[in-house]
Amino acid sequence: MGELRARMAAVAEEVEAALDRILPRVQGPAARLHDAMRYATLGGGKRLRPFLVVASADLFGVPRARSVRVGAAIELIHAYSLVHDDLPAMDDALTRRGRPSCHRQYDEATAILAGDALQSVAFDLLVDPATHPDPEVRCALVSGLAVAAGPRGMCGGQMLDLLAEGRALDLEQILELQRLKTGALIGYACEAGALLGGGSAAARAALRGYAADLGLAFQIQDDLLDVTGDAEITGKDLGRDAAVGKATVVALLGVEGSRCRLEELRSSALAHLDRLEGETGVLRAVFDFVISRSS
Amino acid sequence: MGELRARMAAVAEEVEAALDRILPRVQGPAARLHDAMRYATLGGGKRLRPFLVVASADLFGVPRARSVRVGAAIELIHAYSLVHDDLPAMDDALTRRGRPSCHRQYDEATAILAGDALQSVAFDLLVDPATHPDPEVRCALVSGLAVAAGPRGMCGGQMLDLLAEGRALDLEQILELQRLKTGALIGYACEAGALLGGGSAAARAALRGYAADLGLAFQIQDDLLDVTGDAEITGKDLGRDAAVGKATVVALLGVEGSRCRLEELRSSALAHLDRLEGETGVLRAVFDFVISRSS
Repeated sequence: MGELRARMAAVAEEVEAALDRILPRVQGPAARLHDAMRYATLGGGKRLRPFLVVASADLFGVPRARSVRVGAAIELIHAYSLVHDDLPAMDDALTRRGRPSCHRQYDEATAILAGDALQSVAFDLLVDPATHPDPEVRCALVSGLAVAAGPRGMCGGQMLDLLAEGRALDLEQILELQRLKTGALIGYACEAGALLGGGSAAARAALRGYAADLGLAFQIQDDLLDVTGDAEITGKDLGRDAAVGKATVVALLGVEGSRCRLEELRSSALAHLDRLEGETGVLRAVFDFVISRSS
Repeated sequence: MGELRARMAAVAEEVEAALDRILPRVQGPAARLHDAMRYATLGGGKRLRPFLVVASADLFGVPRARSVRVGAAIELIHAYSLVHDDLPAMDDALTRRGRPSCHRQYDEATAILAGDALQSVAFDLLVDPATHPDPEVRCALVSGLAVAAGPRGMCGGQMLDLLAEGRALDLEQILELQRLKTGALIGYACEAGALLGGGSAAARAALRGYAADLGLAFQIQDDLLDVTGDAEITGKDLGRDAAVGKATVVALLGVEGSRCRLEELRSSALAHLDRLEGETGVLRAVFDFVISRSS
């Protein structure tokens, strides 16, 4: 696990440097918008999604600079979604990554705009020839990210999440919600590695399968942390799910039942990895990291 | 002018049909999100930006289906920006196109999400091979739209607009604000025609010049309507600029001074068109339509 953490930290540093270049400080009247975009994106997070791009792309020998760019694009989308999810009209979160949420640091209007602008920047990043020399690949990357982020992916999942407050969802409904809200972007992160590397349809399917298990496991662990975690370590408000009566796998299966489910997902994820050629040790280790993390 | 209106109505109908296909009604738990996206996008507006794509693309003999797709993508971005600009934290607008604004028809959270999702769908639309067979062209279309919509375009302009309330901007600052907020997307609409049609650098520059004049004229006419217009005809709240002390060209130059400015912009725009080969009569007529419209 120590080796994985070192690898993740190294990739996080490369992603941070890339994001710092992509979101430069800007002087002048629109400086506030650029500042808010930097505030929302830089200096935080585990950069799990970029790491998944890099780890998947490594299976196909993709140059690191390319996978880091795609990882940065996903991180821009992830950052925008957190800014908007934290808004008073949505989850009304006070803190994020141990700091005031973007709309508290700036104001609501600036936070809405910063999120909107981050989404545009993500797509511009993907179509730059530096991301991949083949424009067909760049188009496939754009399409994959747009679908994962849009109404049939992350935005759809957030809609379900908002509608779920105070309602009794069954397990299937919760799984669908989480497949969209968290799973779609994690799935794209893994598949993007294969897109960059020209992986076969079978390899892409195996990575999608792994990612589906990983995404759900990630969300269950997130929900477990909301129940059992430490606000100092997670850097965000805890206990909100129970407070608003939100349906989660943990609320339905209990803490022990959820831990069993994590073990089942782990077996399934590793079986998907067995179908891949190449060294999948890093992706195995990521799974274990995700289900044992404390933040 | 009657002929232009008929042409615009025909293109608007094609764009409406395309948007109706791109944003299908969806059953199931996320139906509310899809409904809000349709509410925000369908059944309204002059579809000026799509018409500009079509009129510019016609100079290069581009198949109509392609220019309509790009026009629809711009309209998705335009629609998302209206939904977000209307939010209580932004312009707090009650009505849009004669109907309740999206957050009043649904709720704030749904409106935020619908806007976010519309942006993703716009980029997915552009990279589909049906938009253009050459993936390099599709990538150029994505990049152009992302820049026009993002922090150095529309979002940057909206930031300046928010910061401008109650401040005394000079003419140069107002022009910069409007160049970004309205001009960037209108400029992209005109340039996209050349991108689709493989226009020369000179042709693209001429279209950009025309579009810059048109965009500013559009905004001045918008501000004139806010002072002199009829809420029944425009379908939105009027008199807001003066009420919040917003700096506009009209506030600075007065109604007559603004009308003179429109004439200057018209001369400049027509000079740009003179540098283009092909039949530019439609683009000339669009300019006259924009500066004489009452809604």
